Order: sequence, then C-alpha cells, then structure tokens
Amino acid sequence: MSTSIDLNCDMGESYGAWSMGNDAAVLAFVSSANIACGFHGGDPATMRKTVAAALKQGVALGAHPSLQDLVGFGRRAIPITPDEAYDITVYQIGALAGVAASQGARLHHVKAHGALYNMAAKDEGLARAICQAVKDVDASLVLYGLAGSKLIDAARAIGLAAANEVFADRSYQDDGSLTPRTRAGAMIENVDQAVAQVVRMVREGKVRSVDGRDVPVQADTLCIHGDQPNALVFARAIREALERAGIAVRTPSAHA
Amino acid sequence: MSTSIDLNCDMGESYGAWSMGNDAAVLAFVSSANIACGFHGGDPATMRKTVAAALKQGVALGAHPSLQDLVGFGRRAIPITPDEAYDITVYQIGALAGVAASQGARLHHVKAHGALYNMAAKDEGLARAICQAVKDVDASLVLYGLAGSKLIDAARAIGLAAANEVFADRSYQDDGSLTPRTRAGAMIENVDQAVAQVVRMVREGKVRSVDGRDVPVQADTLCIHGDQPNALVFARAIREALERAGIAVRTPSAHA
Amino acid sequence: MSTSIDLNCDMGESYGAWSMGNDAAVLAFVSSANIACGFHGGDPATMRKTVAAALKQGVALGAHPSLQDLVGFGRRAIPITPDEAYDITVYQIGALAGVAASQGARLHHVKAHGALYNMAAKDEGLARAICQAVKDVDASLVLYGLAGSKLIDAARAIGLAAANEVFADRSYQDDGSLTPRTRAGAMIENVDQAVAQVVRMVREGKVRSVDGRDVPVQADTLCIHGDQPNALVFARAIREALERAGIAVRTPSAHA
Amino acid sequence: MSTSIDLNCDMGESYGAWSMGNDAAVLAFVSSANIACGFHGGDPATMRKTVAAALKQGVALGAHPSLQDLVGFGRRAIPITPDEAYDITVYQIGALAGVAASQGARLHHVKAHGALYNMAAKDEGLARAICQAVKDVDASLVLYGLAGSKLIDAARAIGLAAANEVFADRSYQDDGSLTPRTRAGAMIENVDQAVAQVVRMVREGKVRSVDGRDVPVQADTLCIHGDQPNALVFARAIREALERAGIAVRTPSAHA
Repeated sequence: MSTSIDLNCDMGESYGAWSMGNDAAVLAFVSSANIACGFHGGDPATMRKTVAAALKQGVALGAHPSLQDLVGFGRRAIPITPDEAYDITVYQIGALAGVAASQGARLHHVKAHGALYNMAAKDEGLARAICQAVKDVDASLVLYGLAGSKLIDAARAIGLAAANEVFADRSYQDDGSLTPRTRAGAMIENVDQAVAQVVRMVREGKVRSVDGRDVPVQADTLCIHGDQPNALVFARAIREALERAGIAVRTPSAHA
Repeated sequence: MSTSIDLNCDMGESYGAWSMGNDAAVLAFVSSANIACGFHGGDPATMRKTVAAALKQGVALGAHPSLQDLVGFGRRAIPITPDEAYDITVYQIGALAGVAASQGARLHHVKAHGALYNMAAKDEGLARAICQAVKDVDASLVLYGLAGSKLIDAARAIGLAAANEVFADRSYQDDGSLTPRTRAGAMIENVDQAVAQVVRMVREGKVRSVDGRDVPVQADTLCIHGDQPNALVFARAIREALERAGIAVRTPSAHA
Repeated sequence: MSTSIDLNCDMGESYGAWSMGNDAAVLAFVSSANIACGFHGGDPATMRKTVAAALKQGVALGAHPSLQDLVGFGRRAIPITPDEAYDITVYQIGALAGVAASQGARLHHVKAHGALYNMAAKDEGLARAICQAVKDVDASLVLYGLAGSKLIDAARAIGLAAANEVFADRSYQDDGSLTPRTRAGAMIENVDQAVAQVVRMVREGKVRSVDGRDVPVQADTLCIHGDQPNALVFARAIREALERAGIAVRTPSAHA
Repeated sequence: MSTSIDLNCDMGESYGAWSMGNDAAVLAFVSSANIACGFHGGDPATMRKTVAAALKQGVALGAHPSLQDLVGFGRRAIPITPDEAYDITVYQIGALAGVAASQGARLHHVKAHGALYNMAAKDEGLARAICQAVKDVDASLVLYGLAGSKLIDAARAIGLAAANEVFADRSYQDDGSLTPRTRAGAMIENVDQAVAQVVRMVREGKVRSVDGRDVPVQADTLCIHGDQPNALVFARAIREALERAGIAVRTPSAHA
C-alpha cells in the first residue's frame, strides 16, 4: 500500500526540576516529535530546548496538547465539553507555534496527548472540536489520530490533512481497534513480532488481529514510546527493519 | 508634540469560575487591550471570549504576559533570569496569537504584566530578553513599556517598535519616573487634574512633576485601569476630554 | 422526627486576587462552614481569614476537600481511584486542621466539594475511601453527605458519625434522590415552598416528591448556597422560618 | 561539645508522573526526613508513600514547607510578607501532619525548603513568622534552621525547640556563615575532608574556616543531599565515620 511511514514520539515532557524521557537519544530515530505544551508537562524552557533539539536533527515539530492536569500528567479522562477541547487545543498549539516561530520554524502537526487523544478517538464532538481548533489556528497542519478513529473522520470532514497512527507494540482486534490493555495479548513484547507487524501494515495495509483475521489498517505514522526501559532498543530495531524492508521513514505530507 | 494617543487596558484576567474586571464596559473606551495569557489569569476560554469581544469593538489585541504565578496574580517580583523571561514571553505571546489566529486576527502589541513589567522597566537584561522574545515571535508587534524605561531602550536597540506608556492617575518625579506609591502625592485622585495631565503630556510632551518642575515625557499610550471602583467614570472622562481637546484615540503604529 | 437541624454553607472559595461568595454575610445565618482547602479554591491566606471569621461567629469548622482542579473549580468529574480519593482527602483535611490548630481550634466536620461529593454519593469505593480518610485523620469528625447516599452508608459502616444533607431548593424523586437538574421541576425557586419543604423534612422526616408521593428523608443538615444572587434572602428566610417553627439551628453532634 | 548528631535529608519531592531522588536508599542512612508538602514537589500520594517508608525505617517525620512554586521547585526567592510565610507554613505542616495522623504518627520537626529556608535565614520577619507558624500548629515540633541564623534566633525567642543545621560539603567563613557558592572553595568535594569537618563540628563545636581560622559552630543536625550523583556514597561514608568516632546518629529532642 505504501513505501514510507512516519515515526513519531512524544517528548519535551520534563517540567521544571523534574526530567522525563530520553529525548536526545530518541530524536535520532524518529521523523516527527510531539512536543508537550505545558498542560501535562513541558514548561517554556523545556519547550524551547526540545524545539531546538528537534530542529537540529531535522525532526518535524508537532504540538502535543493535553487536558490541563499536571498532577495527573494528562492521563485522567477529565470530562470536558467540545468548547473546552477547542480552547485548550488552540492555546497549546499557539504556545508551541510561538516557540517554533522564535526559532524561525513552523509546526508540522498536532497530536493530542493521553486522555484527550483517547477520549477524542471515540467521541465525535471532541474529535470535531479538536480538528476545528487545529484548522482554525493553521490549516496547513496535519492531525495525527488513532487509525480509523473519530479523529481521522473529523479531520477529513473539514478538509484537514490527517495521519493514521498505528502501534508496533499493541495488538489489534477484528474491527481494527486496539486490544484493550486489560485483555490478554494486548501488548506485543517480542521485538521481531512488533517489527513484522509494522512492516506488513505499511506494505500491505493489513494487520493480523489478535483473533487471527487479516484486518485492513492505514499506517501513516507509527508511535514510538520514549519513556520505557527498552525504548531505544525498540526504536532502533524498528527503524533498521523498516530501512531493510525498503520503507522510507518520513513525515506525512499535508497533502497525502 | 502629538495629536493622538492610544488608550490601553488590561483585561481577560478572569480564571475558571472566578471573574475579574469589567471588560465589556471598558472596551467601549479603549483602543487597545492587554489580554492575560494564562500565567496570572486568563484561562483558554476567557482568552477566546476576550479576543472575540475586543475584535467586535475594533480594539487592538495585545498579549499581556506575566510571571507564572496564579496565586500571586503576577504581582510578586519572582527573580528570574533573562532566559526565563524570554521563554515565558514567547510562550504567552504564542498562546494568545493562536487564539487570535483561530478568530482570523493577529496581535498588535505586547505589554508585560505586573511584576514582570516593573522589573523589566529597571533591569536591562530582562528588558532585552522580553523585547527579543517579542521580536523573535513576530517582528511586527509593538512593545508597550513604561515611558523612558529600559523596556523602551531595549526595544529601540533591536529595531522593535515601542510605545511609551504614561499614567493619568500617577504623579511624576523630576527625573520622569513615577512617584513611588509609598510617597505622598503619588496618586492623582482628582479626575480633572488627571485629565489635564494627560492632555498636556500628549500636546506638549511635558508633565509637571510632584516637585513642581516641567519634565519631558513621551506619551504614546495611556494605561486605563479596569478593576477599580470608579474605573468607568475615569475612562469616560479621559476619553471625552481627549476628544474635546482634538486628540485622537488610536493605536500606535509599528512604524511610529 | 427532630427538633433541630444544621445549616451549612460552602465558603472560603476565593483564591489569590480573585474573590468569590459573600462569606461574611452568610456566616450570620449558618451553624457550620465548609471551608475550601486549596484544591478548587482557598489559598492559605483565605483559609486563615475564613477560619477566623467562622470562629468569631461561633460557626463550626468543616473541611471542604475537592478534586485537584483549580481551573475547573472542582466541578469536573475527574476519574480517580479510591486511593487517590483517600490521599487528597487526608491532605486537605490536614491542611485545614493545621489552620484551625494555629487559631486554637479544631475541625468539626468534612464535606466533599462539587464533583467529588457527587461521585462519592454514587460510588461505593470512593465513598469508603473518603470516609476512611476522614476517620484516619480524626475519628471525631462528622461526615456530611447527601442524605441516603453511599457516603452515609460508608460512614456508618466504619463507625464514623454522619450527617444527612438535604436541600431546600431542590425537589426529590420517589426514591429519595434529587431530581436531576435536566428534568423539569428540579429547582424550587419559590422561597415559601422551599421553607415549607425543609420544615416538613425536619419535623416529619418526609418530603413530597416531584411526582406527589411522600418519601422518607433524614434531614440532619441543610445546604445553604452562598454564591447565588438571592442567597442571603433565601438564607434569612429559612433561618427565620425554622426558628418560628421551633426548630433549633445547631450542628450535628458526632454522637447523634 | 556533643556525642550525637542528627542526619536529615529532603525527600518525597516526586510529583505525579515525575520522580526525583532516591528516597528508599537514603532512608537507610538518615535519622530524620524532611518531606515535601505539595508546594514545590510532593503530591498527596507521594506524601503518603514517603511517610510510610520513613515510619518503616524509624526515621523521624518532618514537614518541608516551600514557597508555592512548582515550576521553580521552590528555589526562586519569591518576595513574600511575613503573613504569607506564616500562612504557607501552617498549611503545609497541617497537610503533612494529616498524612502522618492517617498512619498513626506525628510530626517531629519542620525545615523550610530552598528559597524559603535561605530567605528566612537572613530575614528576621520571615524567620519569626515561620517559627510562630510552627509553634501555633504544634508547639512540640523542632525547628531546623541554618546554624546561627535568624531562624534559630527566632525559634529561641518564642521558646520553640531549634536544631542548628550544618553542612559537610560546604566550607564556612570567619563569621560562621557558609561560603557563597560563587566563591572559590565553597564546596568540599573530598569525602574524607567533609567527614573530618563534621566530626570536628560535633566533637569540638568548631569548624576551620575557608580562611584558616577556627570558628565556633553548633552542630545539631547535618544535611544529607539525596539527589546528587554520589549522594549515597557520601551518606554512607559520613554515617560510618560518625559511628567510628563514637558519635551517635539520632534526632534532636524538643528539649535539647
């Protein structure tokens, strides 16, 4: 189906005296960075440094807006209205766009963080609000969302470029959704198996479900986790396997 | 010296369930609005509503960046480095610029809030950092700063348009600085006297000091306080007096 | 059923430069105060002043712990685990108990705020965690909870004194629960009708449901709202009506 | 002069998803723990876990109140009034005392954090406010403060037990104050030299100043840093050297 894929990673999630992640190392493997904007991590100094590091490595800049929840790291599903989702998305994209502008750069994409991402994947109202916010701030941005989710639908409905996000270390169900973590077989811990899943998703547009069926999936961008013990081993293995398979690692274009 | 002046007012300083100020009423009298950006007040929803209200009245949009200090409302002189001043200024301008962009508008100016304004008026390092931040995010913005202060010097030194801010309700000293509030005669509570001071500053470029000397002062923009009991009476009186005196109320241009 | 009732009111919900409510006036009418502890409102200075004002009026001090959500004022149902509910309750009771101790006083009760109150009224796990937290910090405290809710059950299950809270301005359903605000007839806006409902709840232990049936209800404490336009009119009317009816206004004892 | 000293360490400074320090390991070497109370680090869950870990090791519990400054980790000298210092100290002691009470324990001491500690060491007004706050919440608590500073004076003036804090890894000046970090010779990086300094301070009540004079110093408690690379090596070396020298490691009593 395709000969390229984007590798994205969340970063810039340190805050003040607290550090998180291994951004410098991960930047060597990815093509796009989702940078925290202050609501779940990422103070202004961290944002400046993260943007500078990404630019130095030629990695595309993305805003990673979150629910306003420092103590919960944006992982708690705070119930918000579409208006609130719109407002916090606009604010955070703007803040990071300001940091990028101050370094002569522009943003490339937006990927919601944590609970906001998960809620909007299933809730049409939130998905629409987030996509409208992205478009209203800068219509040239690419929206990253869970493959086949409400976020992707909402972006397409308003003519916003969208990138379907897939996972190497998660298994899929027959309907194309991720197997819930509470179910057995949700995580793919074997690196070779994870790599093979990604290569097939890119080349054939298919994934073998946890129940053994071939399911269609669009793989525009792959999420690399940066904060887990063997994250770098995993990232390097996937990048090398993709290159061996002749699959280019590059950012999705706004006009894909 | 001049036939026009800008009237600016801080606004959008409500936060969540807490409201502050009388923004809707004040917007009728001013030409430019300094809008809180979340660090001392101004949550994302308040920012959206404040920008919309200002645009409706044709009032120029300005960012009002602050030290990060909700509980202190940005009034405490937190010691920060120039780098920190740069970073928080970039972030907050970006955030408000995002809100403005989402409504099809652009920012016009930046005025630091509270302690950040006061510290930078006297500290060359902070003044330079703030002005560089403004220029790096958007070189077309106008920097509002205390007339004759380090902020104005710093803006000029890097080719950033600057507007000298004066006060109607404060007396001046022989060196052109404001009389400290701790000294007798610091505040001008008589509306007629305040109006007369402003008119003379605009027309003649002079102010009578608290010790009775004529002191030169550049009056590009006048600060209107919105959160005091008789704020509206004061704002209306000044606006009317200026108009009677043939002085136009309009925003300073970036190429003044 | 009874010859007395407690009147409680939320207060101390100002924060830094933002003020809320009309605490001084309301204190004249109530017998117990639920004082914000910093998580949805109530900075340390406000807490000190609110405790002092309550002590001066002889009003019982209660902690009013909330979800940690300043921008949402504790009104958003952030999903938390029982452990998190326990921890935030312990912390906030402790903080207010410290303020009380510094003024030579002790706390009398605990009433959860906003979304935490509503969630715990229906969720047995949260209700148990909150009650255990109250008991573990100070077993002599009284737990205020929605009449007949999981909070009351949980308190009783561990031997913690509990006070059933009722409302004058809300109608009840046949099962004794409050009519949801989304349903017609949820609010009782007529002061006489509200007063009559309260008097009957105290005297007869009954309330006429929105569908016309008599429903048993235990009325230990009545919630007075302090932040609404006619709050004082309402508070005064209720207090006077209770006194005319020979019903004493006093705090529930821990050994009721 | 003495045959015992207390070893104290700051801990519980993680916050939500961010972790800091090596608390579990350090607890094996110290006799008292200064536990963050939420204003610079230390969310309620971290406080509960830190108190439990300290109790398990028989380490005395102390509150470690800070300026309210998460993003600055309490290290920025925010100018506050004595009233503000009083209020934030009361609040934070109360919060930790609540956590301790919920585990059947009581606090032993209070040590201000970062900028609050440094400011109060030199500012009599702040020192008095903090000591009064400690005494008003619980008069049995011990105040830890820089040896010979305003904090110690203020505690003594109101009859509050005080412990003079000394440092192993910092050199002293002729007047008994710490050599500023900006001056050469401020830090003692040689472990043997640091240990010898401590042993002499305890045994003889003297320290050799950076300029070579013997200066009297009262050493009641020694600060162990937990967040530096060789913190554990340092802590272990000091503990062992003290024991070899026949100096007992134990908490200062409130009636020292």
